Amino acid sequence: MEESAVLLIACPDRVGIIKEVAGFIADNRGNIMHLDQHIDKQSNTFLARIEWDIRSFKIPKESIKEEFSEIAERFGMNFTLRFANCTPKVALFVSRQDHCFYDIMHRFKSGELRGKVKLVISNHVDLKPISDFFGVPFFHIPKSKDNKPEAERRELEILKSESIDLIILARYMQILSKEFVNEFPNKIINIHHSFLPAFPGAKPYHRAYEKGVKIIGATSHYVTEELDQGPIIEQDIIRVSHRDTLEDFIRKGKDIEKVVLARAVKWHLENRILVYNNKTVVFS
Amino acid sequence: MEESAVLLIACPDRVGIIKEVAGFIADNRGNIMHLDQHIDKQSNTFLARIEWDIRSFKIPKESIKEEFSEIAERFGMNFTLRFANCTPKVALFVSRQDHCFYDIMHRFKSGELRGKVKLVISNHVDLKPISDFFGVPFFHIPKSKDNKPEAERRELEILKSESIDLIILARYMQILSKEFVNEFPNKIINIHHSFLPAFPGAKPYHRAYEKGVKIIGATSHYVTEELDQGPIIEQDIIRVSHRDTLEDFIRKGKDIEKVVLARAVKWHLENRILVYNNKTVVFS
Amino acid sequence: MEESAVLLIACPDRVGIIKEVAGFIADNRGNIMHLDQHIDKQSNTFLARIEWDIRSFKIPKESIKEEFSEIAERFGMNFTLRFANCTPKVALFVSRQDHCFYDIMHRFKSGELRGKVKLVISNHVDLKPISDFFGVPFFHIPKSKDNKPEAERRELEILKSESIDLIILARYMQILSKEFVNEFPNKIINIHHSFLPAFPGAKPYHRAYEKGVKIIGATSHYVTEELDQGPIIEQDIIRVSHRDTLEDFIRKGKDIEKVVLARAVKWHLENRILVYNNKTVVFS
Amino acid sequence: MEESAVLLIACPDRVGIIKEVAGFIADNRGNIMHLDQHIDKQSNTFLARIEWDIRSFKIPKESIKEEFSEIAERFGMNFTLRFANCTPKVALFVSRQDHCFYDIMHRFKSGELRGKVKLVISNHVDLKPISDFFGVPFFHIPKSKDNKPEAERRELEILKSESIDLIILARYMQILSKEFVNEFPNKIINIHHSFLPAFPGAKPYHRAYEKGVKIIGATSHYVTEELDQGPIIEQDIIRVSHRDTLEDFIRKGKDIEKVVLARAVKWHLENRILVYNNKTVVFS
Repeated sequence: MEESAVLLIACPDRVGIIKEVAGFIADNRGNIMHLDQHIDKQSNTFLARIEWDIRSFKIPKESIKEEFSEIAERFGMNFTLRFANCTPKVALFVSRQDHCFYDIMHRFKSGELRGKVKLVISNHVDLKPISDFFGVPFFHIPKSKDNKPEAERRELEILKSESIDLIILARYMQILSKEFVNEFPNKIINIHHSFLPAFPGAKPYHRAYEKGVKIIGATSHYVTEELDQGPIIEQDIIRVSHRDTLEDFIRKGKDIEKVVLARAVKWHLENRILVYNNKTVVFS
Repeated sequence: MEESAVLLIACPDRVGIIKEVAGFIADNRGNIMHLDQHIDKQSNTFLARIEWDIRSFKIPKESIKEEFSEIAERFGMNFTLRFANCTPKVALFVSRQDHCFYDIMHRFKSGELRGKVKLVISNHVDLKPISDFFGVPFFHIPKSKDNKPEAERRELEILKSESIDLIILARYMQILSKEFVNEFPNKIINIHHSFLPAFPGAKPYHRAYEKGVKIIGATSHYVTEELDQGPIIEQDIIRVSHRDTLEDFIRKGKDIEKVVLARAVKWHLENRILVYNNKTVVFS
Repeated sequence: MEESAVLLIACPDRVGIIKEVAGFIADNRGNIMHLDQHIDKQSNTFLARIEWDIRSFKIPKESIKEEFSEIAERFGMNFTLRFANCTPKVALFVSRQDHCFYDIMHRFKSGELRGKVKLVISNHVDLKPISDFFGVPFFHIPKSKDNKPEAERRELEILKSESIDLIILARYMQILSKEFVNEFPNKIINIHHSFLPAFPGAKPYHRAYEKGVKIIGATSHYVTEELDQGPIIEQDIIRVSHRDTLEDFIRKGKDIEKVVLARAVKWHLENRILVYNNKTVVFS
Repeated sequence: MEESAVLLIACPDRVGIIKEVAGFIADNRGNIMHLDQHIDKQSNTFLARIEWDIRSFKIPKESIKEEFSEIAERFGMNFTLRFANCTPKVALFVSRQDHCFYDIMHRFKSGELRGKVKLVISNHVDLKPISDFFGVPFFHIPKSKDNKPEAERRELEILKSESIDLIILARYMQILSKEFVNEFPNKIINIHHSFLPAFPGAKPYHRAYEKGVKIIGATSHYVTEELDQGPIIEQDIIRVSHRDTLEDFIRKGKDIEKVVLARAVKWHLENRILVYNNKTVVFS
């Protein structure tokens, strides 16, 4: 595991920002490994991701944020600081479909995804054996129109008791309440089985089939109050033809859902995503 | 140029259709070169494209349609019969953007697209030099709110006097009237610069940029009364990132627009498209 | 499960083949569901896949092959007949890498792949827990330079005792002997982690990285005597950039390996592949 | 046209490089618009592209290189400095195929490609009319086994008299001599009609067809002494199937050749390409 720090920065652009940040790092004996910066000209906003080696860094990890704050304030920066060798705590929400669940669990297990899956929450029991196989606690929390607030309260309790950093909705077919979502801003990643903004909401494959599209897609996005309207993180597509039935659409789509969700989760866990104007900047 | 005939057939499915059609062809010494058939199970519809060599066919070209009609009637077929060595007459509608215009003209000239561009109609004069270079008559028919019916009347006159078989809207930025469209059912192909059904109507790249999509697309479709709602023929996409400006979206999109429009036109001219339930079956 | 029969046919082209085959089917009350036919003009070869509903077929399943033989002989056909509702018996060969193994096992379990995984053979014990989880017998057969013939003899014994129809090499890193391969002509599917014919043999990702390619790929093919030279069934690719390390190549490649292998296996099990001149015709 | 400067830098990595470069820029009132940096860990090499606004830069354009040299020397930098508003002088080499020629000419004309096409050289006269249409001088220099050295001498004369910065081989089917190539290091871009390293040399589509690949590609690369072995700049691919004839391979390939060549040329002209170890780093 690398010993590095990652800064994500958004602030009004002006002369000298990189000089200042690079100076802060070099003067403390940090070696920049990746720097990716650009300007959003429409809003004159400076956007950057900087990763540097902290093995010889003069400032101890726990003080970097504070020491950097002086620069951040001077430039009006919105910034986050994370460390590569931390282990984010992850919760998965699943329902009955298992393809994304298997796929994500396997990627965590193999080390492709950095982090630890602490728990799985589901409104059905069907996928408990998979959870068991991977050795992850499984919480069965059924949901109905009547018990939703109470169910969400229990979910929140569990999530907080485990200090969860990221929630992955791996084809969880329930809509989360505004209150729930607001507890985890830009910390809930969903996979929607269409090429958004086409076909938001229910049964996108059915509607794509009816429409006669020649390509279907999947979209991972952060969850916000408005259904399927959060900042898009990643999308991908696959071709379909008149020979494909609705069942083929669904089957082919699964392969896209898996990779699109996995990429989004990976980038989030590597601090590559900056949310900005309900859009994402992905420093991939 | 090949000497072949192409049948496109749609009819209620039942036992024995292919036996009958293949019998008709073989009994008259036709050799089937391609046969692509499948069933739409939802509606129990038989759909097929059959192409056969007619160099030794016993029925003369001009009588095949009539001779086949007996079978067609027996099975309640909706069918079209075309010949590979005919030369469809094509009209292009353009405005000020030249990328699709150049591209399509070059493909006709090189023989990649079967057919003859008989004329170009535009509401601006900007692209006349290109038309001249390719040796195609150019008609400048300006359009405004006030003169639209009259302008379309003139356009229709020209199109009919040249017996135009196919109209290609190569980034023609005007909306055609219902009356005009109905004169050419499934004979007007448009290229829309978005991945439909996302972003129909005006300024799709602007809206895609605002939305923060990670992939942009283009869609070719037959023109129907409803704007950008006609049967989709072909779609394709290209990746964009946060580094891409709106201008980059537009530039990258052009490459997709060109190939998507060209494929749709090619398939139409080769009688590979069967329109059906406001969708297309493309026997590609 | 559908009650259908599938014919794959290759024979010298001439007038009347489809008439004859479609006649055979219709006259016995079979309804053709899919027919896909074309001619390889270079060799004048007729190639077709025909699937028909046999629920009302007058000839019992076990006699169809024999009854069809008269036609087959007349036209000099090379043909295979299979039934959709059979359950092919499958063996997986794996080594230490688990991504393709997981993926394929899950696809069989979910019913996406038709067939039954009867056993897993590996030269290492690492993946036994996954085999156990899916309830499939796992045979550990170590291989070294010295014991290869004997190891293969044992493998053959196991495969034959279970009447295995298809062997999937899910990143099995051993080369099979000519004798072994010849026992299963066009019945062993391998996944090679490059875009063949580029980078056959060992360490393709390393060599792609050295070469500085901008796209990497994976190739599934039938195994023949010559290493990585068998008929290609399917290929797919993913983009890489200078930011990707060799480890990124390997990681990104895994996602392609999984889908490319899965598609090849699916098409094989659905009798969509006709091998021909060391190439495949895939009626997808 | 933007008033910006672009630095491409390669040097041994160590602490403080960005601090120094960003300091040089900021201290002279330059505002960095894009900075893309990373480390090649295998060789511990720092690689970066930095673009900054020079409208208020205190150092005049003509002196920037000299002033920067002190830093460059201190860090052992291999660097190039270019300005966005310059107009590179371009020569096109063509033969008989016109698709890439049309395409590139149109992109220059529309302003998508920055630079001016000063002349076209061809061993055939076929494409002169296109050159004329675009108003570019056309030199017909036939080539045979016997006259090659002399023909190249004449070509060099013309290229030098026009101070050509970039040569584009737009499907020029002749092999350039080692001597010729060495006059333009990393200044000759070729488009090869295969997915290199597969099928270098002659007739790649024929060989791809024979091999039965499922995907074909095109590769743009800098020309070096060894045929089709220069640093790869860009690649792209398109699917083919058994239904595609060799002619279809060739036709489909053209669309890929055009976009792959155009992207490579664009990146070169925007100073986005750093050649390094016979590979390219493309800061796209």
